[in-house]
Amino acid sequence: MRILVKTTIKDVAKLAGVSFKTVSRVINNEASVKPQTVEKVNQAIAQLNYQPNTAARNLASANTYAIGYVYDNPNAYYVINMQNGILAECRNRGYELIIHPCHATSPTLTEEIIKMCKRSQLAGLVLSPPMSEMAGVMDSLDELAIPYVRIVSGSATKRNHRPCVFVHDRDAARNIVEHLIAQGHTRIGFISGDQGHRSTEERKLGYREALTNHGIPLDRELEIDGTYSFESGVKGFKQLRALGDQPTAIFACNDEIASGSLFAARLNGLDVPSQLAIAGFENSPFSLQTWPKLTTAAQPTGEIASQAAATLIEEIQSKRTGRLPSEVAQHTHFHPELVVRESTYIPD
Amino acid sequence: MRILVKTTIKDVAKLAGVSFKTVSRVINNEASVKPQTVEKVNQAIAQLNYQPNTAARNLASANTYAIGYVYDNPNAYYVINMQNGILAECRNRGYELIIHPCHATSPTLTEEIIKMCKRSQLAGLVLSPPMSEMAGVMDSLDELAIPYVRIVSGSATKRNHRPCVFVHDRDAARNIVEHLIAQGHTRIGFISGDQGHRSTEERKLGYREALTNHGIPLDRELEIDGTYSFESGVKGFKQLRALGDQPTAIFACNDEIASGSLFAARLNGLDVPSQLAIAGFENSPFSLQTWPKLTTAAQPTGEIASQAAATLIEEIQSKRTGRLPSEVAQHTHFHPELVVRESTYIPD
Repeated sequence: MRILVKTTIKDVAKLAGVSFKTVSRVINNEASVKPQTVEKVNQAIAQLNYQPNTAARNLASANTYAIGYVYDNPNAYYVINMQNGILAECRNRGYELIIHPCHATSPTLTEEIIKMCKRSQLAGLVLSPPMSEMAGVMDSLDELAIPYVRIVSGSATKRNHRPCVFVHDRDAARNIVEHLIAQGHTRIGFISGDQGHRSTEERKLGYREALTNHGIPLDRELEIDGTYSFESGVKGFKQLRALGDQPTAIFACNDEIASGSLFAARLNGLDVPSQLAIAGFENSPFSLQTWPKLTTAAQPTGEIASQAAATLIEEIQSKRTGRLPSEVAQHTHFHPELVVRESTYIPD
Repeated sequence: MRILVKTTIKDVAKLAGVSFKTVSRVINNEASVKPQTVEKVNQAIAQLNYQPNTAARNLASANTYAIGYVYDNPNAYYVINMQNGILAECRNRGYELIIHPCHATSPTLTEEIIKMCKRSQLAGLVLSPPMSEMAGVMDSLDELAIPYVRIVSGSATKRNHRPCVFVHDRDAARNIVEHLIAQGHTRIGFISGDQGHRSTEERKLGYREALTNHGIPLDRELEIDGTYSFESGVKGFKQLRALGDQPTAIFACNDEIASGSLFAARLNGLDVPSQLAIAGFENSPFSLQTWPKLTTAAQPTGEIASQAAATLIEEIQSKRTGRLPSEVAQHTHFHPELVVRESTYIPD
């Protein structure tokens, strides 16, 4: 038989003369504790040879080497690129990846995510939109001191106490629509992605900004609500063609939608781009495999994902090794770039 | 302070008067142990209140609720469909999924997989081709008593001590090529998937069987070595067009390759199917989004994956609850079905 004597967090609190919660804060490297208190607690930890990593005191400290990726996205290429970007970083650092697709609209979403973290003792999470915008999810993770990194569509966010990777969708969308305007289009249709995804909102705002900047009046009839799917592109095309005053160009919220519109245009005998210009967003393989190839915004999905995973693992490792994580949450920014191809542009 | 007294597997072996290994066999529900021995060991376990699930005696018994999916495949749709099929079953049964893409040709592949199983204490693995055919990987998993289920291209396998999900690629490929022959084609090109994937071999054998069955001589010039990618379809098309005696039809090993050939055909001003018929395999979204739509074989990837995960989790749960797993390894079979569309068929 083996006899194991286990020091608990309460022993540490007693010896240091502080509360249970204060010890927990020190172990989690929270900034709110006074330096003298930190020293007192660390001395008690050393004296008792207390090993926080093997204790069950909270989830975030479980010495596991798995992080989770939580997403709700029907776009296969986006998901695979995200996974591969995170996995590249995991591989470098010796971590495994648990994937957890879910439904953003599920009433039990927060419970589901927390249950996963507990059951699999995850070291941390990468949240992609729309989960990265959900206050309830963030609150619960904060409470349990589970580290997470958010991938956010936009250039800023109100809650910025956790690291964010920002993707400047609005600017990229504006650049696409300004390119269409430069080709002489003034009647430009917009087919959105899923409602509730901030990328949909940001890309729509970019579309409107471009029109406004060039004195083109907004026409709500030209803004079609869609989802991030090929079928949505087919449907959106039909809705736009049913208008009395039809658009001469379409900006679709991603390449899959744009491919659907392109397919529908061909079915209707329209030449692209001379009779209808079509642009997408993402620079997925779709954009290269259509005929003609799609103008789009090159979104470096893999790099965005690697950056998020690197930031997360860096924080986890800092805590484990006792190094202090940097005080300021690390924010990084990505700017998708305009890629002009044959679906919108006729060379001279 | 808490005092924990931990009974080890050696205590159980001593009390039962058997070897360490025998206790391990009983705990793993292996069939090779005599019923009297099983009873003796179980009595000792009860007397000592030994909890095998919390002991580190071996990996397979770790009471974790995560399984792993190991794959090497560049096809985004295939991978996403596999993941979603496995995840559907995981969700039903309360398991999480760790994904582990890897390189089948890596010299350290087996070590990598074992390390992952240990580090993340996986309850079991789903192996898709080509990992599901690798003796070294299987041997190591067997040694550590880590349960796994294999997805295998073909109708049988030599090593069938573990559950397999068979996908009858050869028959499906033969059906596609026989459809092309029925359309009047006798000169039919073949563009393969990755070498080393058994699906590539099986689909090639199906192609050859169809030709042989109809008395059409095999011509090795018509068999192009490719990979499972769009680019490979473009390249394969060019190689086939460079032949003195060009084919009038192409059977590509998957829809991505077929899409590439279709793209290249259009670039060369060929009408599909009147000047060149093209068929793929998989029934991925690609096959519906090309112009014209692709004839293909409907491979129920999601169902195949769910079946594999269900078989695996059933076995894991049987062991945990003490139910004996069924003696015979469960083998299941899937038959991809021919789907005829406009890329090979002109309606009357």
